[in-house]
Amino acid sequence: MKAMAIMEHGGPENLQLMDLAEPVPGDFDLLVETHACGMNPVDFKKRQFALGGPAEFPLILGFDVSGVVVGLGSRVEGFQEGDLVYASPSLARNGCNAKYVLVDYRTAAQRPKTLDHNGAAAVPLVILTAWESLYDRTAVEPRQNVLIHAGGGGVGHVALQLARLRGCRIITTASSEASLALCRELGADVIINYREENVVDRVLAETDGKGCNVVFDTVGGPVFEQCFQCLALNGSIVTITPTQTDKIADGLFFKNATLHCEFMGVPSIFGINIESQGEILRQAAELIDSDRLKVRVGRTYPLEDLAEAHRYQESGHTTGKIVITVKD
Amino acid sequence: MKAMAIMEHGGPENLQLMDLAEPVPGDFDLLVETHACGMNPVDFKKRQFALGGPAEFPLILGFDVSGVVVGLGSRVEGFQEGDLVYASPSLARNGCNAKYVLVDYRTAAQRPKTLDHNGAAAVPLVILTAWESLYDRTAVEPRQNVLIHAGGGGVGHVALQLARLRGCRIITTASSEASLALCRELGADVIINYREENVVDRVLAETDGKGCNVVFDTVGGPVFEQCFQCLALNGSIVTITPTQTDKIADGLFFKNATLHCEFMGVPSIFGINIESQGEILRQAAELIDSDRLKVRVGRTYPLEDLAEAHRYQESGHTTGKIVITVKD
Repeated sequence: MKAMAIMEHGGPENLQLMDLAEPVPGDFDLLVETHACGMNPVDFKKRQFALGGPAEFPLILGFDVSGVVVGLGSRVEGFQEGDLVYASPSLARNGCNAKYVLVDYRTAAQRPKTLDHNGAAAVPLVILTAWESLYDRTAVEPRQNVLIHAGGGGVGHVALQLARLRGCRIITTASSEASLALCRELGADVIINYREENVVDRVLAETDGKGCNVVFDTVGGPVFEQCFQCLALNGSIVTITPTQTDKIADGLFFKNATLHCEFMGVPSIFGINIESQGEILRQAAELIDSDRLKVRVGRTYPLEDLAEAHRYQESGHTTGKIVITVKD
Repeated sequence: MKAMAIMEHGGPENLQLMDLAEPVPGDFDLLVETHACGMNPVDFKKRQFALGGPAEFPLILGFDVSGVVVGLGSRVEGFQEGDLVYASPSLARNGCNAKYVLVDYRTAAQRPKTLDHNGAAAVPLVILTAWESLYDRTAVEPRQNVLIHAGGGGVGHVALQLARLRGCRIITTASSEASLALCRELGADVIINYREENVVDRVLAETDGKGCNVVFDTVGGPVFEQCFQCLALNGSIVTITPTQTDKIADGLFFKNATLHCEFMGVPSIFGINIESQGEILRQAAELIDSDRLKVRVGRTYPLEDLAEAHRYQESGHTTGKIVITVKD
């Protein structure tokens, strides 16, 4: 089958078009014909080996798929050939930058009816990440002050909508015109242009000096360090990018606070609570089809231009999701 | 009134017997005649200034009291003069190493009927800390593997019982004969003598290599660092001693895990959710009076020997709680 894959860790130039063997479904797998792939920072991190862990080559990346079921493992329930499905394939196996990909049926759901494959491929990983972060790890509540860093980003703009659906008051950060506009369109209550003003000062001014009940860090580095100053007593920080700093222990203790490190790969890699991800995608499809949730697609690239897409993703200044079209 | 107090931060020799003015209750305060004080590490930490924060001198320590209500603020409800009460006085005001102490009535409860003042004074701070940690911050569940470090210590031996009441499988650490015996008596499932065997190896061996769902660190330092290796996927660490280490971010992320930093002083210092502590002490009194929960008293000292009690507490090798008798 046609695939873009790497033979060793390194730069985007390592991505090569190859003809590889079709995968054979295990008992719980759907064999999915890929129509479109969503891109996420995990693609370039795995390409660079930044996440560590074992790898076998050729290694196919791509961990968001929308496609058609063309084969079924012996223990699959609730799916049949021809189903239009979407899912985030396991980070521990080959991804979907290829004609076919294996997906554990418990992590998959029927694609939203109102989206095409390109639109659906943009959804799974960011929805799972934001949902697990704000609805499962923390449980955001109406009228809570919630700070979402990078509200125009892939995970950020979904988190913003999920917090809004729960009735939270949303403070978010952005800098590009496109991201600022997206945050406004999605109904953020306070939008801070972090290039023009001090984020901590503004957050405290907007919350009577109390800080936010929940702070969601989708950026890491210095942004993660800021989270502690933006946090209210008894508050929770959720981060999706592990960042070492000497502020963690004291920053949490004197506020009686909590740090959640969210890694959406755990259920599919380790098979723990794996059904939860299929269920989240079913609920997300309903929200999307009833126009209460949208995932913005930014640029699309054909599979052959995957290296270019990696370079753009890695720039860190994308608005909306990047989608790779595999089969039109 | 008679009080042991310090005129500046420093060693135990700074504690001096003084004659100080009686405190005057605010609207929400009980004026409590102190019969006994419990001691906790926070006493020597505040004496040393290890917690920082503002201080006015003379400063009276002692943050566990059992005594008799002898005065009431104008907005107090549910208490009257003569009530036998117990509470953990606010860490932001003078403590109870004195003839009288002020206690916000919302943080107080009637003393367990089956305990005398010495027994009751040992209870509040450790119960509040363990309860908030295991029942509120995390919610331990039946059959979960729970690791409690220092199960013979003040907070540890209460945490062990609270986890046991919820049906958890309890792994704990201790080294002195007295602490090992206390852990056995309280029904720990696995007791690791940390001087004789490797804690991480044993925890993994006892959990099929999976680690514990909840790890409760009451010790800090190198013990805190061990927590990450003892933790299961999707697990939670609760610590009551902030310790900086470069293991936090990665240690949590790849396990999709959570770190709760528990500081029981927040409700009374900041007045947030302050009623919850009185409610916990009411429930604890029921558990104690029905013989389902006990707080072990180790040594008792008269108020005049408070400096000696501080030295013993600071040694870090106490079993059971230290109690200071103020009025027999």
